[in-house]
Amino acid sequence: MVLKVGILGGANIANKISRAINSIPDVAQVVVVGSREASKAASFIERNKLVHASPVAGYDAVLDFPGVEAVYIPLPTALHVEWVQKAASKGLHIVLEKPIAIEDEHVDAIVKAAADANVVLFDGTMWMHHPRTAAMEAALQEIGPVWDVDSAFTFKGSADFLENNVRVKADGDPLGALGDVGWYCVRAILWAYDFTPPTHVAAHHGALFNEAGVPLNIAATLLFPGGRKARFLAAFDTVFTSKLEVYGDRGSLRLRDFVIPTAEHEASFVMATANGLADGDTRIATVEETRTVRNAVTQEAALWQRFAREIEVVCAGGRAPEYWPRIAALTERVLSAVLASARQGCALLPFEHRA
Amino acid sequence: MVLKVGILGGANIANKISRAINSIPDVAQVVVVGSREASKAASFIERNKLVHASPVAGYDAVLDFPGVEAVYIPLPTALHVEWVQKAASKGLHIVLEKPIAIEDEHVDAIVKAAADANVVLFDGTMWMHHPRTAAMEAALQEIGPVWDVDSAFTFKGSADFLENNVRVKADGDPLGALGDVGWYCVRAILWAYDFTPPTHVAAHHGALFNEAGVPLNIAATLLFPGGRKARFLAAFDTVFTSKLEVYGDRGSLRLRDFVIPTAEHEASFVMATANGLADGDTRIATVEETRTVRNAVTQEAALWQRFAREIEVVCAGGRAPEYWPRIAALTERVLSAVLASARQGCALLPFEHRA
Repeated sequence: MVLKVGILGGANIANKISRAINSIPDVAQVVVVGSREASKAASFIERNKLVHASPVAGYDAVLDFPGVEAVYIPLPTALHVEWVQKAASKGLHIVLEKPIAIEDEHVDAIVKAAADANVVLFDGTMWMHHPRTAAMEAALQEIGPVWDVDSAFTFKGSADFLENNVRVKADGDPLGALGDVGWYCVRAILWAYDFTPPTHVAAHHGALFNEAGVPLNIAATLLFPGGRKARFLAAFDTVFTSKLEVYGDRGSLRLRDFVIPTAEHEASFVMATANGLADGDTRIATVEETRTVRNAVTQEAALWQRFAREIEVVCAGGRAPEYWPRIAALTERVLSAVLASARQGCALLPFEHRA
Repeated sequence: MVLKVGILGGANIANKISRAINSIPDVAQVVVVGSREASKAASFIERNKLVHASPVAGYDAVLDFPGVEAVYIPLPTALHVEWVQKAASKGLHIVLEKPIAIEDEHVDAIVKAAADANVVLFDGTMWMHHPRTAAMEAALQEIGPVWDVDSAFTFKGSADFLENNVRVKADGDPLGALGDVGWYCVRAILWAYDFTPPTHVAAHHGALFNEAGVPLNIAATLLFPGGRKARFLAAFDTVFTSKLEVYGDRGSLRLRDFVIPTAEHEASFVMATANGLADGDTRIATVEETRTVRNAVTQEAALWQRFAREIEVVCAGGRAPEYWPRIAALTERVLSAVLASARQGCALLPFEHRA
């Protein structure tokens, strides 16, 4: 059974997702693309060679398109609640781009809409679906309980990006670098801690906001039970880095391409033992090993494969999994707490978790 | 002319320094080692094969030993001022282990003592004397003005270390992990910013202190003029890492063995271009290059080679260089400000710099 997908809007990232769906034709197929103008949808379809897709004007027409079973929502964050609610109410399964929402109440509304309608809700965190991530989950067991995590995802936006991109607009994606690149860092930290919520969150001094109050550079510390910690940096003003380092009791794991792999069909990470220094502190005794994982399809295609499998469970009469909305909501709430801390002089804020 | 060196005490690190001096016999020679008991000095001498050295009881006897020209002071930090002042007053050149002092006034007293006596004063930051560091200084020019720096130096101390080592004692090295491993991180940050002082300093929430108030895990953000930043983590409770990453306008530089190189006779660092993502954000376009530098002697021997050269200048009638005491003092003052911030609820403190 091939999943019939509709796409709301022609955001840049929708090109990548279209190509991913096209790469797994036995799993999913784009059948409709909606844009404010049908001509834009048509050129999106042509550019991405979506041979089975029809262009429509407006997003409602996507939801109502005959046969559509799932939607991809890459709209600006400010529009997420409305379109998730509409899609869910029509029984459509949803892949929602990150950040999923702006306000915590919107997070609740999104999760509730999906649960009430028993539809599968995924956020767009592609790296979680790469087989490397499963290998790293096994590796986390080897390095023992996690003690510290360090992550950064940064790039240096052009003058045009910093002026005009939706990701720096208060009425588009007001979480800015925090919601965009910071989403991945926070998700990775939570993933490394097996989605245990932090106890406290504190932004670091030195954050940079644009005139509209959108964060362009923001870093924070997250505190976890038992003295465990994490730090991250999200920035639109710093040259590219995409790193994740996890320190456990017995060793560490790291990679510099955790969000988007360097190569298309294999991806690596480095495992290091705990050893430290040797020979009277004259050399490093830590032993490192690079582990490489092959992947048949891209991580974005892997996301759609998993999404389709979850939908099949629901179609067979099962419940939509609570796992994906739960971790999306937790990620979003941590981002929201970091922003609140930054706006309160980098105060240490207790993180209030609701399961 | 071979520099005649005396060593005050048999601290662990003195073994490493003794071996370094022994490796450059045409440059320097240990002629005397003083310990509280002469027998301890004798076994230190025997263990390190210091064939030209005499054991003496007490540190005064080192300073008064016939022919001694320079001293190595690896004593607990609390004893630094006293022994620097005594050594300088006798015209002895000094290599002083880090952290150089506990209180800012002691920093001033140490720098003044060396300047007044016109003796060369080095701190024990060995990595600065590795030829790799000179190569990295050239590389910093390539990646453009520095915008951000991230550093960490951590190891997981044993239960015995965390209970009994001088580095966790309030009457020994009360700066703990900050003064020990944090020294290198702060020095590296300042080095990357060409020793421009920060404008502000803020510790991160989540620092861990022992019952005596000595920091075991401490992180901080340093702010520099023009929105530039740096972060570091210093810890005795986290598995080994020793990393430095410098982000410039045009690329980045990184290494994971900045304090102590992995290999004895060559050392590397990675240069990365600024590029970021390509192909519709499906892969990383940043190009990386590993640069390797050969070194004839260890970095600790290189420190003593440079120290001996500076002393020759002074012996020829020149002034002792102000550079080394200045950067040592700046490093120490930043550590001190970080600790003050941590003790004031991680407040953002202006960094008051006196040239």
